[in-house]
Amino acid sequence: MPRLVMKFGGTSVADLARIKNAAEKVRAEVERGYDVIVIVSAMSGKTNELVGWVREISPLYDAREYDAVVASGEQVTSGLMALTLQEMGVDARSWQGWQVPVKTTSAHGIARIEEIPSDNLDQKFDEGMRVAVVAGFQGISPEGRITTLGRGGSDTTAVAFAAAFDAERCDIYTDVDGVYTTDPRVSPKARKLNRIAYEEMLELASLGAKVLQTRSVELAMRYKVRLRVLSSFEDVTDASGTLVCDEEDIMESNVVSGVAFSRDEAKMTLLAVEDRPGVAAAIFGPLAAAGINVDMIIQNISEDGLTDMTFSCPVDEVERARVALKQATETGQIAYKELKADTDVAKVSIVGIGMRSHAGVASQMFSALRDHGVNIQVITTSEIKVSVLVDRKYLELAVQALHDTFDLDKAG
Amino acid sequence: MPRLVMKFGGTSVADLARIKNAAEKVRAEVERGYDVIVIVSAMSGKTNELVGWVREISPLYDAREYDAVVASGEQVTSGLMALTLQEMGVDARSWQGWQVPVKTTSAHGIARIEEIPSDNLDQKFDEGMRVAVVAGFQGISPEGRITTLGRGGSDTTAVAFAAAFDAERCDIYTDVDGVYTTDPRVSPKARKLNRIAYEEMLELASLGAKVLQTRSVELAMRYKVRLRVLSSFEDVTDASGTLVCDEEDIMESNVVSGVAFSRDEAKMTLLAVEDRPGVAAAIFGPLAAAGINVDMIIQNISEDGLTDMTFSCPVDEVERARVALKQATETGQIAYKELKADTDVAKVSIVGIGMRSHAGVASQMFSALRDHGVNIQVITTSEIKVSVLVDRKYLELAVQALHDTFDLDKAG
Repeated sequence: MPRLVMKFGGTSVADLARIKNAAEKVRAEVERGYDVIVIVSAMSGKTNELVGWVREISPLYDAREYDAVVASGEQVTSGLMALTLQEMGVDARSWQGWQVPVKTTSAHGIARIEEIPSDNLDQKFDEGMRVAVVAGFQGISPEGRITTLGRGGSDTTAVAFAAAFDAERCDIYTDVDGVYTTDPRVSPKARKLNRIAYEEMLELASLGAKVLQTRSVELAMRYKVRLRVLSSFEDVTDASGTLVCDEEDIMESNVVSGVAFSRDEAKMTLLAVEDRPGVAAAIFGPLAAAGINVDMIIQNISEDGLTDMTFSCPVDEVERARVALKQATETGQIAYKELKADTDVAKVSIVGIGMRSHAGVASQMFSALRDHGVNIQVITTSEIKVSVLVDRKYLELAVQALHDTFDLDKAG
Repeated sequence: MPRLVMKFGGTSVADLARIKNAAEKVRAEVERGYDVIVIVSAMSGKTNELVGWVREISPLYDAREYDAVVASGEQVTSGLMALTLQEMGVDARSWQGWQVPVKTTSAHGIARIEEIPSDNLDQKFDEGMRVAVVAGFQGISPEGRITTLGRGGSDTTAVAFAAAFDAERCDIYTDVDGVYTTDPRVSPKARKLNRIAYEEMLELASLGAKVLQTRSVELAMRYKVRLRVLSSFEDVTDASGTLVCDEEDIMESNVVSGVAFSRDEAKMTLLAVEDRPGVAAAIFGPLAAAGINVDMIIQNISEDGLTDMTFSCPVDEVERARVALKQATETGQIAYKELKADTDVAKVSIVGIGMRSHAGVASQMFSALRDHGVNIQVITTSEIKVSVLVDRKYLELAVQALHDTFDLDKAG
């Protein structure tokens, strides 16, 4: 029988009524003839409660014990979902990560899935099981201990199962009804996309559109898993949600598919850095070692052998970045005149695979921002994306202006 | 190093402060030189919450899924306890039932422990681990699924580990400071026993003294595990709690060690039953099949080929017993004139291994009850116990009278 993976996030299984609602969607797919693998998250709020306990006991907790505690949340949901399906007459059973088994690395708290042998589930499907409810977000290490994949890891679990079991599609049920051209709270003209390419979704996900975890999209792209994002609170039709798929499956690509943004950015500038080979490595090495997520990097033209180096990072990492850079000066790795931090900036990006074949998109973006009086502080570009750093107060204005400029309210 | 098993019940690990309190008792034993196996229950209230969800979904739930859901409670405590011990500088780690592994039967919800291979824990102890925190109440079936041992199963887990790892003692920490001659709420003169024999504890446990699960005492007796029951809310000294041990370890046995009672009893009488060989089997077969816990059984003298049959059972099983008996008459298995049920009775028992060598104990009991005007409805006796069924309103009076008669307020 064809197979389908269906993943339900925390808000979609927040209580017994919602679990029942989700189970009804599963039953509908079983009746359509699918064998289904359901991936469940912990009931909304549970993971936070468990994580809170662990942190209260020990700020420097043992990640192995963290995993044992936190993985229990998905275990509960998996059993409750299996029971709910059984009550509806569907042959279902629960599987914990270690039972499947979902083999992961030993990197507790941020483990990566290495292999999902299909024998156990295949056998049960052959024996008549119609639904395997799998606890998401978790696996088992080579040492036989429970691992977790990090926040949002259930999306990754879902895609990995879709790949391992050759599923026709991987449906991610969440509390939004799809991927939008931008955040509807910022632009009322935002429109749901019917299809979006993996590459675009990847840029949108990493830019702060919190619909799908970045790793799950990467995995889907690598294994060509067709991902559908849809709401668990609406009736499902063929037009529901947004399909994240291969570029080739999208008839007519938009030049720009969406406007993404991130509010919590900071801009840091090192003034009068000695401009010599290896200076970039000397600066960004210590920052990487300190776990700072450096995003955009700009190096100004050199003058008198000195240059200014600007980079952006999440605003809550500014203090740690400052400490790391100070230590690097103390050990003589780098030297600079002054370190300036602007914690009042935001990043706005346009994303679209059509940019590859259309020239002038960046220039059109800059003109639109200029026409609205938005000053651009930093620019970076990639093949399918242009990002700018702007004063945070211009964020909404910039997003709306770009949404209009690229006609994102009209179907492409 | 010598080994100790310490078990903490739900109220002893109800929140992080109590888990810390329990962890301090564990650390003290580690400092005394023990390698410790800690068995934990779910945080108080958690199991009820989980069971409530399962029952709400399905009254006739799949016991395998019930087990997957419910076992998560102990998993959480095991991780939190391990983290708390680590924070105190103690080398500890958590173990789930399937990791040890605790091999059980496949009787989900009421599984029995079949084997606990010691290799995994032994290896870690050899490598320097000082405390293994094991999730109580659970194991793994031959099919690789999570099983639970039934309510109170953490006591059984603790004793099974003490036997498998040859522990010097098994300390059961709970919310009472030991085993009493009777319930202090009924008799203010109740006194804590320093030692009690397995056989006595077994009779007390099955008679409703809810300190230890019956199965755990049976297991302790079979493997000669020295069990100590003590409070987790008091400082521990050598005189703490009550030691449940072999008869031979008790210098001077009391004739009577305690007065046990059970409030929720019912007495059922079948009038004018045909007195023929096999009639008892014809009556109690269907009751056993219906899961009725028949306790005392009395058959009156036969007259004209007819007899009356009386038995007691828990009061909340009366209706089911009535249905089972009615069905048995409809199929012609049995015939009787009338079925009477008295749901207003209580059982009072005296227990003591000294009875074996002392005659006249039962007679002394009956005299004391008569002197206080308590009418006895049914009597049963065993080697170390005499039980009577009385009108429920006499329960407190009977317990206090017997406590006085056998001088239980004085150390034996």
